[in-house]
Amino acid sequence: MIRKILIANRGEIAVRIIRACAELGVTSVAVYTDADRHGLHVKKADEAYYIGPDSQSGYLSVHRMVNLARAAGCDAIHPGYGFLSENADFARQCAASGIVFIGPDADVIERMGDKLAARAAMIAAGVPVVPGSEGNLGSIDEALALADDIGYPIMLKATNGGGGRGIRRCDNSSDLRRHYDRVLSEATKAFGSAQIFMEKAVVDPRHIEVQILGDRHGHVVHLFERDCSIQRRHQKLLEIAPSPQLDEAQRAYVGDLAVRAAQAVGYSNAGTVEFLLDHDGSFYFMEMNTRLQVEHPVTEMITGIDLVQAQIGVANGQPLPFKQSEIRRNGFAIEFRINAEDPQNDFLPSFGRITRYFAPGGPGVRTDGAIYTGYYIPPHYDSMLAKLVIWAQDWDALLRRGRRALNDIGVYGVKTTIPYHLQILGTSAFQRGSFDTGFVEAHPELTDYSLKRSTREMAAAIAAAIAAQRGL
Amino acid sequence: MIRKILIANRGEIAVRIIRACAELGVTSVAVYTDADRHGLHVKKADEAYYIGPDSQSGYLSVHRMVNLARAAGCDAIHPGYGFLSENADFARQCAASGIVFIGPDADVIERMGDKLAARAAMIAAGVPVVPGSEGNLGSIDEALALADDIGYPIMLKATNGGGGRGIRRCDNSSDLRRHYDRVLSEATKAFGSAQIFMEKAVVDPRHIEVQILGDRHGHVVHLFERDCSIQRRHQKLLEIAPSPQLDEAQRAYVGDLAVRAAQAVGYSNAGTVEFLLDHDGSFYFMEMNTRLQVEHPVTEMITGIDLVQAQIGVANGQPLPFKQSEIRRNGFAIEFRINAEDPQNDFLPSFGRITRYFAPGGPGVRTDGAIYTGYYIPPHYDSMLAKLVIWAQDWDALLRRGRRALNDIGVYGVKTTIPYHLQILGTSAFQRGSFDTGFVEAHPELTDYSLKRSTREMAAAIAAAIAAQRGL
Repeated sequence: MIRKILIANRGEIAVRIIRACAELGVTSVAVYTDADRHGLHVKKADEAYYIGPDSQSGYLSVHRMVNLARAAGCDAIHPGYGFLSENADFARQCAASGIVFIGPDADVIERMGDKLAARAAMIAAGVPVVPGSEGNLGSIDEALALADDIGYPIMLKATNGGGGRGIRRCDNSSDLRRHYDRVLSEATKAFGSAQIFMEKAVVDPRHIEVQILGDRHGHVVHLFERDCSIQRRHQKLLEIAPSPQLDEAQRAYVGDLAVRAAQAVGYSNAGTVEFLLDHDGSFYFMEMNTRLQVEHPVTEMITGIDLVQAQIGVANGQPLPFKQSEIRRNGFAIEFRINAEDPQNDFLPSFGRITRYFAPGGPGVRTDGAIYTGYYIPPHYDSMLAKLVIWAQDWDALLRRGRRALNDIGVYGVKTTIPYHLQILGTSAFQRGSFDTGFVEAHPELTDYSLKRSTREMAAAIAAAIAAQRGL
Repeated sequence: MIRKILIANRGEIAVRIIRACAELGVTSVAVYTDADRHGLHVKKADEAYYIGPDSQSGYLSVHRMVNLARAAGCDAIHPGYGFLSENADFARQCAASGIVFIGPDADVIERMGDKLAARAAMIAAGVPVVPGSEGNLGSIDEALALADDIGYPIMLKATNGGGGRGIRRCDNSSDLRRHYDRVLSEATKAFGSAQIFMEKAVVDPRHIEVQILGDRHGHVVHLFERDCSIQRRHQKLLEIAPSPQLDEAQRAYVGDLAVRAAQAVGYSNAGTVEFLLDHDGSFYFMEMNTRLQVEHPVTEMITGIDLVQAQIGVANGQPLPFKQSEIRRNGFAIEFRINAEDPQNDFLPSFGRITRYFAPGGPGVRTDGAIYTGYYIPPHYDSMLAKLVIWAQDWDALLRRGRRALNDIGVYGVKTTIPYHLQILGTSAFQRGSFDTGFVEAHPELTDYSLKRSTREMAAAIAAAIAAQRGL
């Protein structure tokens, strides 16, 4: 049985995992870099150790992390998301050191991290993938014939690419002729491999992802889907569970697909199967995230299941405590990412001191954060300060409660995405529950807001602060 | 339709009602006294007006409250709990001024506020009451005969009494002979009326109360029960929904009783029917609270129903939006009252400045409060700072999450009931879900705790505050 967990992460997700440990009676061990000495995760963990001066030698160091876990007497490591969470070598080093890695097996992480291997596994399992070349393209003639077959637009992609590089969209055969050699050359230069493949370009799809959970005894269940279509440059801004854009038949279908995908690769622990939903109603497997997601709380809100505790349970070798038929869905949830960014200045990160933080409250409001009045946001890490998670019985009530909670939370001292979220809630497309990944680009007017209300609140906060100092 | 509501209250319940208004798109109007100028309800309401220097001329002034509501253009008043919430004259004045009083009719408030009238109404409706005299006692001989009939111990009570005065317990006939004239004389002196009655003394009962909700069309539903047995000197310390001490048959029985009680008196809006549950399994009607209760959030957590929004809906004349059979119960919830009191010093109020407030978060945690870092707790009002409300799927998970959340919340600068709640969670009786109103008295050892952990956290908070000031 796991008794002591090292949390190989920082910020809100480290705090989230510490909370799960506290509820299970498991000792939590935090790690921190120079910039994170005053992080909330350091204050809240049962123990906290300095891991290294910066990310590279700290949160990203497989070696240091495993050594520290051993030195501190930890029997397990929770990787959170980002950093080492999808690093197969890290999972292997943990196992080699007799430490339970709270996640799937290293081989599964590796396989799902390889785009073509993941795609091949899904095809073999009968899970629909975006139509495209099976493996690498051999020639421009092969590419042209295939594109005619699939239908334009298509995407050319570097097989070993990533981060949005080595990708070109082709709307017709002359585009394809023009871009073919270019992508091949980019692939060689940037990724050291002259391998490219083709996929149908799914234009402005919905991003629908399914939460799955597997144990070490071959059982896999899904916990319904999340709609993460509201993105800006592939960064999710908010997430919803369940998707207001699916009917019950689609919901059941995509849930089954996700379970089939997970079973096909022998998945255990929590994971997410991401799908594109095309405007013609087709679902295509996109990728599998072999870790806990930022947006897992919305799933927790509609199912009542604590995913981090469930992760620790299955990592302990326990069978899943519920069957698929026992997992109930209740209401709607939305997560707003409260980022220290200025939406009116191209979402420029806005680091600095939180001069004043008012936590929101009342019915249906959950916050997962790592901020407090006086906290200094270090510029070294991502800009997400907190996740404001809302539950309500139906979609309309969710919109109303979401707006209320966004006005309720108060973060002063830095610019945040709070007013931008309020703008999203104000659009008729969002209110109707009809939006796709092109939403943000299609609504440039959303950054046209005045901070009047926030300014009023700030004035009140300043007055209160002055009064407090005077001892009034 | 109600468009603008004056909230005739302060503190956390005013903030709670403001949040409901915000979700409904109703304009909220706060009122404040001298001591409450910096109250969170003043900051959060759409409008805020000075009502008077102190409670008597402010929150308790029927005249000022109604006039202000009219002057501010409000079409309704929400009284919250305490203050004017059970003042029938206030409800009448509202109605006379064309303002909707969000609560039951004045006549119902009045009738349920009269102990013997309420008792008579319940007897007529077939709701069991504590066995006793029907009306006032005529003589010591009548009292002795009745006591033999009911069985000792019995209570002698001044009919017009209140506040725990004019009450004597009699364990046998010689007690009764000795106390009879004394209570009669106390009743005359203290309450101006030589009227006393007798009730069976229910020793260390469970306090079980049922949330009810009625509309103006004769429909009444219950939203299950709350267990408020953990009390100190008749002050509730924490509340639970549903009661871990009832089986399903008892739950259905007491729920039906409450609906019958409410229907018998033509009840509309939210209310609570309080019962004593004797150790022999008998339920006895105790009283009806004709208002929203402090502990309403635990009911909201297990049903997903927003009670304040529901109150406003039925006050608007709308029919209840659900039938009894559509109200689902999900999991368990507990509310910890976080009071500024020192449990180790006879729960002495501990007013002053909140030097540091860390809001709790994570799954299943809701806070309803009116505090923030820098808030000065005025000594004029009650000592409740916040309500920490926890939800979990089952009783054991609730205990674990409750402990975690009590360690998660951080209130510095004043003494609080937080460590005392942790002590309660540590008792085997509470863990087994078996406790009655004698619990606190039976566990004097619960105040034997050290603040070691809190001291560690305070040290960390101080270090962070110093670092923040230095700009580290």
